[in-house]
Amino acid sequence: MILVTLPTRYDWIKLQRFCANVFTKAGLSEKNAEIVSDSLVQANLRGVDSHGVVRTSIYLKRVEKGMINPHADVTIENESDATALINGNNHFGSVVGMQALEKALDKAKERGAAIVGVKGSNHFGTGAYYALKAIEKDMLLLVMSNASQTMPPTGGVRPFIGTNPLAVGIPSGEEAPFILDMATSVVARGKIIVAAQKGEDIPIGWAVDKDGNDTTDAEAALEGAVLPLGGPKGYGISMFIDILSGVLTGAGFGKYVNNMYENWEDPQNVGHFFVAVDINQFIPLESFKKRMDTYIKEIKSEPKAPNVEEIFIPGELEQKCVLERKKSGIELPEKLVEEFIEIGKRYDLDFTKAALKVKVPD
Amino acid sequence: MILVTLPTRYDWIKLQRFCANVFTKAGLSEKNAEIVSDSLVQANLRGVDSHGVVRTSIYLKRVEKGMINPHADVTIENESDATALINGNNHFGSVVGMQALEKALDKAKERGAAIVGVKGSNHFGTGAYYALKAIEKDMLLLVMSNASQTMPPTGGVRPFIGTNPLAVGIPSGEEAPFILDMATSVVARGKIIVAAQKGEDIPIGWAVDKDGNDTTDAEAALEGAVLPLGGPKGYGISMFIDILSGVLTGAGFGKYVNNMYENWEDPQNVGHFFVAVDINQFIPLESFKKRMDTYIKEIKSEPKAPNVEEIFIPGELEQKCVLERKKSGIELPEKLVEEFIEIGKRYDLDFTKAALKVKVPD
Repeated sequence: MILVTLPTRYDWIKLQRFCANVFTKAGLSEKNAEIVSDSLVQANLRGVDSHGVVRTSIYLKRVEKGMINPHADVTIENESDATALINGNNHFGSVVGMQALEKALDKAKERGAAIVGVKGSNHFGTGAYYALKAIEKDMLLLVMSNASQTMPPTGGVRPFIGTNPLAVGIPSGEEAPFILDMATSVVARGKIIVAAQKGEDIPIGWAVDKDGNDTTDAEAALEGAVLPLGGPKGYGISMFIDILSGVLTGAGFGKYVNNMYENWEDPQNVGHFFVAVDINQFIPLESFKKRMDTYIKEIKSEPKAPNVEEIFIPGELEQKCVLERKKSGIELPEKLVEEFIEIGKRYDLDFTKAALKVKVPD
Repeated sequence: MILVTLPTRYDWIKLQRFCANVFTKAGLSEKNAEIVSDSLVQANLRGVDSHGVVRTSIYLKRVEKGMINPHADVTIENESDATALINGNNHFGSVVGMQALEKALDKAKERGAAIVGVKGSNHFGTGAYYALKAIEKDMLLLVMSNASQTMPPTGGVRPFIGTNPLAVGIPSGEEAPFILDMATSVVARGKIIVAAQKGEDIPIGWAVDKDGNDTTDAEAALEGAVLPLGGPKGYGISMFIDILSGVLTGAGFGKYVNNMYENWEDPQNVGHFFVAVDINQFIPLESFKKRMDTYIKEIKSEPKAPNVEEIFIPGELEQKCVLERKKSGIELPEKLVEEFIEIGKRYDLDFTKAALKVKVPD
């Protein structure tokens, strides 16, 4: 048996440390660098690589070009008993998102429920990140965000609405918590980005090219438009998320949410919408958890379709993935590793130290 | 030109009057009979016949069998600054729903936002009904309800979750308001009921039969299961609606929400979940309406796909339908007309008086 370093598998703690150090050097406070890097690595741990550390370089680039302000003050522009309007003033999306989450949870604890709208923000990572944080505090959370244009309206041909994500976090007792985190497209645009990076094809039905034709070419799809989930229903869901996150909060909406990769003139002005609920105002928390366990157990005991081994609830597979990746490390594509080595050199940090040493039988 | 009575087209006001009279004779107060009949006829006006007056006879039957209590007191079981838990105590769903809506709107006006959970309710009609009422008061509303089992979980074969609907109502300025009202199935189960009543086939992909096979037979589909919108995403959405409406409120969930047509031993114990938002706490109402108009105008001006004449926003076609049907009347299937004539006889009411007299060129 020999001890080797597999260059493509990385220890999550070291990976997060590396990213946090990078973000600190890029101007973020230690606390905020911790939030941004945690948000990214948690996405990788959950298997959502499209929203993981792959985003590091674009975040850095936007800071360098003055498109994200790592020194901004996140301010509360209005507050009522059960609502708050937060202006991110162009800070990192996950930094703004975490402040909005805390505000929503605090107010919900005090008032039973709270809604926090956010404007002036940026790409905030995965909704599941906030859902998990709420679950840790035994709170129930709905979180939405708008995004730059990627999907046509029903009947249209070019991108108008974003794949505006919806996430829901609900605690349970012994069972896995319920964590739904979905883009309102047939698939997340991030999956098409990953396919393009790997040079892989995508299935018909995921997206259209820039002329509105069906395509299996991931690059062509990225130049075209991804399609809404279930046609007009997904279009409607994406649209109300845009309205709640953008039209209502004063953030961008539709074409006024700027593209993170393409627009280097203006901040993104992304908007978010957080709904937090104190379970105890409806039913004692312990009863709720028992009811959740019953519900989940009953679903999982349902007769299975042919070739199905197990019925999963939303977030359950991702939770299993976390355990697995904490143990075995996070695999990063070669292109990304090279990027990190470059970033490391720029900031005098050694990326290769993040590699997980694994024992390989000889 | 001769003046004739077309037996299949009915004047909406007379139709509502007839239904209200029927419900009054069945034990509802005049005010509540007005709510229930209004809720049904408004669905017909919007073109959603599956949730219209076709439901009258099942509602009546459930009252007669003691499954709905038209004399119940709807009670508030718990209340915090921004939440309330309402027990419908088995009253009509739309009567309970309207009280929950009023509570949610009042509290949101006072506190900025409010969440009202409901248990002990029944089928509450269309979510759009409540969305419209909120819009009339310039408020923003999300409303959800669970329903009896009709869809399998992803990986399962038999019904476990309902087609739990989600509705969102958002006011605009000059443009049509945004009213999304969708079942979380590929199509509403009500559409399959209507197809079965008309003896028509349904497309592949809408539903499976009782053995889990794809089917075009509407009757077989009703014995089987309708499929969730977009696979696992629709399953996840339906599930969180069930949790918010049922697990959280103390109402039924999963198999504990009883089927309106099949269970004659127990009340349905449906749950609902209302989220009301005072727009002014985020942005002045008039600015919001202008932003909505901009948003809607921009979407509607998008380049159109081949053979598409117009891009619509959710609820726009239904709004056009209301105008059309208020003028031309509501068409009812012959079977339903016969049912109404029978119901009329039972309660000493003449249904045929609800027919719209139209001028037909000779």
